[in-house]
Amino acid sequence: MTRTIAVIGSGLIGRAWTVVFARAGCSVRLWDAVPEVRAGVMAQLAETCRISGDDPAALDHVTVCDTLEQALDGVEWVQENGPERLEVKRDLYARMDAIAAPGTILATSSSALVASSFSGDLAGRARILVAHPVNPPHVVPVVELCPSPDTDPDVMDRAEALMRDVAQVPVRMTREIDGFVLNRLQAVVLAEALSMIEEGIVTPQGLDDTICHGLGRRWTLMGPMATINLNAPGGVIDYLQRYGPTMARLADDAARGEAFTPEAAHIVAAAMPDPLQVPALSQQRDRRLAALSRHLTQDNQNTPTKDL
Amino acid sequence: MTRTIAVIGSGLIGRAWTVVFARAGCSVRLWDAVPEVRAGVMAQLAETCRISGDDPAALDHVTVCDTLEQALDGVEWVQENGPERLEVKRDLYARMDAIAAPGTILATSSSALVASSFSGDLAGRARILVAHPVNPPHVVPVVELCPSPDTDPDVMDRAEALMRDVAQVPVRMTREIDGFVLNRLQAVVLAEALSMIEEGIVTPQGLDDTICHGLGRRWTLMGPMATINLNAPGGVIDYLQRYGPTMARLADDAARGEAFTPEAAHIVAAAMPDPLQVPALSQQRDRRLAALSRHLTQDNQNTPTKDL
Repeated sequence: MTRTIAVIGSGLIGRAWTVVFARAGCSVRLWDAVPEVRAGVMAQLAETCRISGDDPAALDHVTVCDTLEQALDGVEWVQENGPERLEVKRDLYARMDAIAAPGTILATSSSALVASSFSGDLAGRARILVAHPVNPPHVVPVVELCPSPDTDPDVMDRAEALMRDVAQVPVRMTREIDGFVLNRLQAVVLAEALSMIEEGIVTPQGLDDTICHGLGRRWTLMGPMATINLNAPGGVIDYLQRYGPTMARLADDAARGEAFTPEAAHIVAAAMPDPLQVPALSQQRDRRLAALSRHLTQDNQNTPTKDL
Repeated sequence: MTRTIAVIGSGLIGRAWTVVFARAGCSVRLWDAVPEVRAGVMAQLAETCRISGDDPAALDHVTVCDTLEQALDGVEWVQENGPERLEVKRDLYARMDAIAAPGTILATSSSALVASSFSGDLAGRARILVAHPVNPPHVVPVVELCPSPDTDPDVMDRAEALMRDVAQVPVRMTREIDGFVLNRLQAVVLAEALSMIEEGIVTPQGLDDTICHGLGRRWTLMGPMATINLNAPGGVIDYLQRYGPTMARLADDAARGEAFTPEAAHIVAAAMPDPLQVPALSQQRDRRLAALSRHLTQDNQNTPTKDL
């Protein structure tokens, strides 16, 4: 049976989600509030596929809808990618909860808002959750699934199963927390990085090299926990006995929010390409992320043990 | 002219360094304090090459020496990989400083000790620095170059040039700091990760998935600064204006050293493979890191702009 999915909002994230669902064989109903955006979206989707190397034939499964009602008709899942403003989410979820059939799950791509901030008063609050991707999800597979206190555990089960079925990697959280998991980890790295850069200990390029030619390579293959598990002969317990006190001392000494200064921002900006290059560099990033994803998929097939 | 390098200590790190220098065409003089270790090291080096896919013909450039004096004779660089104990380093550097010709640079792979802790009293303290790799350096190219207050800037220049010549990626620090750059970044990630795991917000597997199928992929291609530079239309200044306050709030709320608890360690350990599998999994990691390195090298050749 073909699954039918609605994608609401067709900006960068919405288009990437459309590719994720369509290439997995889902029938996708795409809607954007702006008619001009809807008119141009199929051409943009073809361009998204061109950059990532996805087969544009997948787009045959995509229908651009003229109304929200059409888009939500008979779908099992709604992936919403609207503006990150609370009043917009409140209005949109009230409308979608009134329109969608009872079995339809409503998921937001929001990185900034927890679901309870807009779902708490709705009759269908048990079917609403956050499904937060990394931009753009068609070349980076992780999806944070974060319930509100009202989200039904069965909805979480269905969310997790759907994400696996469309070849994403779901990370199921047990409760709401500011920043979810991913941005909490990013925030501590950015704080410590900006602090060392502003203090002149290392250049922005040196900082980036430390991660991209160092720690980032291991983390791409196995994540921080599996990484330390292999950094001591007796595994993670052995590692934390040997190095835990040192790591704790470094964490105690680390920078916090005060590291986000205009001075640090300007030092980093001076080391970066002209902001006019951001669109071209983003396309290059997406092409490279797609190539990395293909490499890792192939490499996983050559790797007998699941744990790496 | 063939460069001649001494590698002192032939454990995992010393053997990996030997492969780095030998495959770059350097003549390598290898010495270990333990005669039985010296006797077995060429067979171990062949095995290292087998796992990483390096051509074992490179090992023709390696000579196992019987004495420290032989190893240091006429070399331009000493890469020392002895035990991470201060009294051992003090004795070893006093010996090496007395033996080595004046132009020879002495570099330690130490991750835990800054150079000034053992170099300060030596006549040759200006030629001593830390060159801290990620384990194992033949498949992960970053090397943190950290001077003591006495290290000559010209020595740092030569260190940086040598590391580039042997295809490593040097990160030049301006002064000593506890943990250098890499482990300071690792420490904040581990603290926040262990805290979320112990609080039950996410499983160890979910935490690892968040990085290895998410943030880690971007960081492998470009590092944290270049990553945020592409996460807002106007580049990094725009990013930090939009998201800096949120990131600062998350960093203020992040866990510190108190997150390194036995309870967290046991939750993580329960999710990991049996510690008896650590050696086999480490081999698998090294094979995968080598494959990733080859992929990234090839991909860089396909990428016109240096900045990505």
